[in-house]
Amino acid sequence: MAGDVPKGTDMATLGLIEYDQASPEVRAVYDDIMATRKTDRVNNFWKAIAHDPTTLRRTWQSVKEIMDSGALDALTKEMIYVAVSVTNQCNYCIASHSAAARKAGMTDSMFAELMAVVGMANETNRLASGYQVEIDEQFKT
Amino acid sequence: MAGDVPKGTDMATLGLIEYDQASPEVRAVYDDIMATRKTDRVNNFWKAIAHDPTTLRRTWQSVKEIMDSGALDALTKEMIYVAVSVTNQCNYCIASHSAAARKAGMTDSMFAELMAVVGMANETNRLASGYQVEIDEQFKT
Amino acid sequence: MAGDVPKGTDMATLGLIEYDQASPEVRAVYDDIMATRKTDRVNNFWKAIAHDPTTLRRTWQSVKEIMDSGALDALTKEMIYVAVSVTNQCNYCIASHSAAARKAGMTDSMFAELMAVVGMANETNRLASGYQVEIDEQFKT
Amino acid sequence: MAGDVPKGTDMATLGLIEYDQASPEVRAVYDDIMATRKTDRVNNFWKAIAHDPTTLRRTWQSVKEIMDSGALDALTKEMIYVAVSVTNQCNYCIASHSAAARKAGMTDSMFAELMAVVGMANETNRLASGYQVEIDEQFKT
Amino acid sequence: MAGDVPKGTDMATLGLIEYDQASPEVRAVYDDIMATRKTDRVNNFWKAIAHDPTTLRRTWQSVKEIMDSGALDALTKEMIYVAVSVTNQCNYCIASHSAAARKAGMTDSMFAELMAVVGMANETNRLASGYQVEIDEQFKT
Amino acid sequence: MAGDVPKGTDMATLGLIEYDQASPEVRAVYDDIMATRKTDRVNNFWKAIAHDPTTLRRTWQSVKEIMDSGALDALTKEMIYVAVSVTNQCNYCIASHSAAARKAGMTDSMFAELMAVVGMANETNRLASGYQVEIDEQFKT
Repeated sequence: MAGDVPKGTDMATLGLIEYDQASPEVRAVYDDIMATRKTDRVNNFWKAIAHDPTTLRRTWQSVKEIMDSGALDALTKEMIYVAVSVTNQCNYCIASHSAAARKAGMTDSMFAELMAVVGMANETNRLASGYQVEIDEQFKT
Repeated sequence: MAGDVPKGTDMATLGLIEYDQASPEVRAVYDDIMATRKTDRVNNFWKAIAHDPTTLRRTWQSVKEIMDSGALDALTKEMIYVAVSVTNQCNYCIASHSAAARKAGMTDSMFAELMAVVGMANETNRLASGYQVEIDEQFKT
Repeated sequence: MAGDVPKGTDMATLGLIEYDQASPEVRAVYDDIMATRKTDRVNNFWKAIAHDPTTLRRTWQSVKEIMDSGALDALTKEMIYVAVSVTNQCNYCIASHSAAARKAGMTDSMFAELMAVVGMANETNRLASGYQVEIDEQFKT
Repeated sequence: MAGDVPKGTDMATLGLIEYDQASPEVRAVYDDIMATRKTDRVNNFWKAIAHDPTTLRRTWQSVKEIMDSGALDALTKEMIYVAVSVTNQCNYCIASHSAAARKAGMTDSMFAELMAVVGMANETNRLASGYQVEIDEQFKT
Repeated sequence: MAGDVPKGTDMATLGLIEYDQASPEVRAVYDDIMATRKTDRVNNFWKAIAHDPTTLRRTWQSVKEIMDSGALDALTKEMIYVAVSVTNQCNYCIASHSAAARKAGMTDSMFAELMAVVGMANETNRLASGYQVEIDEQFKT
Repeated sequence: MAGDVPKGTDMATLGLIEYDQASPEVRAVYDDIMATRKTDRVNNFWKAIAHDPTTLRRTWQSVKEIMDSGALDALTKEMIYVAVSVTNQCNYCIASHSAAARKAGMTDSMFAELMAVVGMANETNRLASGYQVEIDEQFKT
């Protein structure tokens, strides 16, 4: 499939697989993504990894299962996703999951507090390791 | 102060400053930590960075301000803290903030979902960068 | 053992779920791990995440699917696993996957070269970002 | 071009040193890079760090020594390089070493499996640390 | 405030708050930044986080307190900032703090040595963890 | 000791190569380490990687060349090493390079300021990426 995709300057490694280029297996995943998310758009992430239908299917099934509301609601999960992505400096994930969190109800104030916690946690993580702090007895089971 | 601390095998870089060894400036922070958290114990983290009273005071003030309930509740903030600490592999912070999150109401089910999201986000962060996915136009505004 | 451990609000870990304590759902995964890996032992990793049977099942299915020989052989995959774990400083994963790689045929010489590549890649990653090197035109398609 | 670029105190990058601007010392490294890699092109990475001929020489000598076929073949080493670069989110290195791996024989299927392993390892690294899993006795020598 | 900012393709998440759009509280911080740094320009970083005046104020106060000359001079502190930013692959921070370090007196030779140390430390960090090196007894007190 | 340790397929570490077990090639590096550092002790790091004499030699030569006083003095370099190691959460490297920095003259006050800068840089790195701040025009060459 990769060989069929015309390569341009705005492409991912292997390019993006658009719906009308996709195999039935890939289309089935795209359809489920759009139905689950109630949208008619599939993000570039899925179109890029669609070059590997096995990874596409497994990743989507996992994301779908994990991100659904459960003991934690969908908004909290999206904010946790952003927290991880910001810590890892993954620009694509920061952009897409910040958008998803807003769609799930994150307000400007919630975003501001999310960033403040993420920043502070990254700071104290290093103070703890730099000062080589031993874990308190009561935190060891 | 560091010079007064008897060094043993279980010490942080500079050792821990216990309450009765602490200067009035450090004691005032310890007192505020215990009053704010409604506990009679100060974690090793604070006792370790107390060797630098300026950092102790500033870090505590920041943590106190940031972690208080606001647009996000205290439990959500503690789980975000755990998410960052796990991503950074900071063992001390994982232990102490998992305990803090449980104290704030995190159940086993919530912990399980938190871990699942953190794991998946760390995975897709790398798929996004490895496939060199371009940010979708609609996420760029 | 998890059930035997008195848990308090300060407790961080959940303990390990041994086979004879496990639910049928968890035992089924343990059985498949032992059968697939031709061993009578289940690593602590699985016994720890067994507190969340959903994550246990999904993670094992993914690992089983991904780590099996395909376009890349099992040894190469284990060495890539080690490369990631070393880069992330995950001590548990370094220990367990180095052992797995050796079991799959990694010699001392292969380990030595693996470490050399991982070290050098971590170095040049930072030289590239520190010197703010632009991606070459020919790598952009 | 570096010499032609008017530099101010706000300037971050030093520009690239092209062959015809380069000192004999730098040219000797460029010549060896092109001869070793059987190409007439020197990547931007080398042209950027050429501002420090000592680092250029040492880094090239190390890369040349490490990446040559030995107990591990050149393709395996390039894929390990990509695994590290993806984990670190180094965009330059992902682009250049993915290209190098393809040149060394990495197929689309191999790339797909490489990404799957890197993604999964990044996920389980965090599950291991988040669940605070103790290293199994048999993995401790 | 965010709602008032016209969004364009080159914007941060919430856009940038320019001086003449800013509230008195935000302007006071901008004024202090310009006075402290003896410049008539406020970097995009501050204009972006100004959407959260609390974080803006706290972060600026902390940065101002920490980066001032003390036991370590301002140039050394800026180089340490660059070392962290390069290790984390934070492109914005690399660009802005490299510029700040140059303004504080960092020469090309100092930059070259800084990069060499950062690169080498990132390499040996992984050799140490990959070889699972135990901490020497004399470093444990 | 490595030779004395019965090794099985599950074994991860290779043990340490002590001086009197070492080959002439390894001893020559140990001798140079002790002579250069004016000590009669070789750190565990070198004894661990000595299982790969090529990596031992190359790493020592690079470290020796890079860490020597130049445009930056030896103490500044050691502190930069600590900054990187703390950011990466490499416990071995934090312990050994904090000791080296102290030996090179780092006082408690300098250590405290080093930690404060490292913590703050790790925080603002994430605020910059989380708010998706664009690089200021004046920082782009």
